[in-house]
Amino acid sequence: MARPRVSVFLGMSLDGFIARENNELDFLSIVNTNPPEDTGYNAFFASVDVLVMGRRTYDVVVAFPSWPYGDKRLIVLTSRSVQPQHGETFYNGSLCALLDQLGAEGIQHVYLDGGATVRQGLLEDVVDELTLSWVPIIIGSGIPLFDKTLPDTKLQLVSSRAFPSGLLQTIYKVLRS
Amino acid sequence: MARPRVSVFLGMSLDGFIARENNELDFLSIVNTNPPEDTGYNAFFASVDVLVMGRRTYDVVVAFPSWPYGDKRLIVLTSRSVQPQHGETFYNGSLCALLDQLGAEGIQHVYLDGGATVRQGLLEDVVDELTLSWVPIIIGSGIPLFDKTLPDTKLQLVSSRAFPSGLLQTIYKVLRS
Repeated sequence: MARPRVSVFLGMSLDGFIARENNELDFLSIVNTNPPEDTGYNAFFASVDVLVMGRRTYDVVVAFPSWPYGDKRLIVLTSRSVQPQHGETFYNGSLCALLDQLGAEGIQHVYLDGGATVRQGLLEDVVDELTLSWVPIIIGSGIPLFDKTLPDTKLQLVSSRAFPSGLLQTIYKVLRS
Repeated sequence: MARPRVSVFLGMSLDGFIARENNELDFLSIVNTNPPEDTGYNAFFASVDVLVMGRRTYDVVVAFPSWPYGDKRLIVLTSRSVQPQHGETFYNGSLCALLDQLGAEGIQHVYLDGGATVRQGLLEDVVDELTLSWVPIIIGSGIPLFDKTLPDTKLQLVSSRAFPSGLLQTIYKVLRS
């Protein structure tokens, strides 16, 4: 009944923002190419059993013209559940407890998304791996991945890869405290 | 009388801090190795004609047990000049104007240091290159390199290099707006 492995896969500005204040992601697209570069997202997404995200991210994604997650199981961390539109479920509690529950179900790999949720994961010391794709732009303000709630957290650089577009993808393991 | 080339060379935490709130740099040393890795700092330092830094950085460095800059010309941006201890001079004005003056003297390459001074350089659009060495640690709070005074600033990834210690050095050109 081990807890599932927990991974994060995020694009961000060089100054650490995962979206603008208004939730816009326009700045991420400065590295878009035709054909698109393979940043490994599809393989990563295929490898996860469950996607867990915060309410803010969910509210943004559910308003997209098309649902990006197919029939992947999705759990939204929120105290205000709404009518599910794509089979998603809602969970109100600690990430630790949710992961224990998922582990007991035999879930192997969880994809954690959204700034607040990733920070909660780091605070609860349950995140195993961060794949951060740095877009070569400074945007000044927005929704940060990291904030001052976080304690010193050492990481191990697993790999880094520069794409022709200027995107720099880094993979870090979180060293448990 | 072209303006000199302006470069930045900084170590920082993964969450974008160049020092802790109390100016401590302890977290940068988690990548120290014996013998030390050659991150190119010495070659970079040798290539610059003048070092320009902010008052906060100067006050930290001048209190070090030994002066780290040899006889390199150093200009401190401040409105409160003090008695120079190592031949340093003090300048109260815009970075633009200072760089014009240095260009007129034939200075080719300026090393800009300190968070506020680098941001001023980015705001005045005079920075050419940023060498950022990312230490694999999140520290939560400290003195940031970037902050919300900065407008959208596109960069070009020139190179990236992972060191065995886990340090990831990235070099970006600033694309002029």
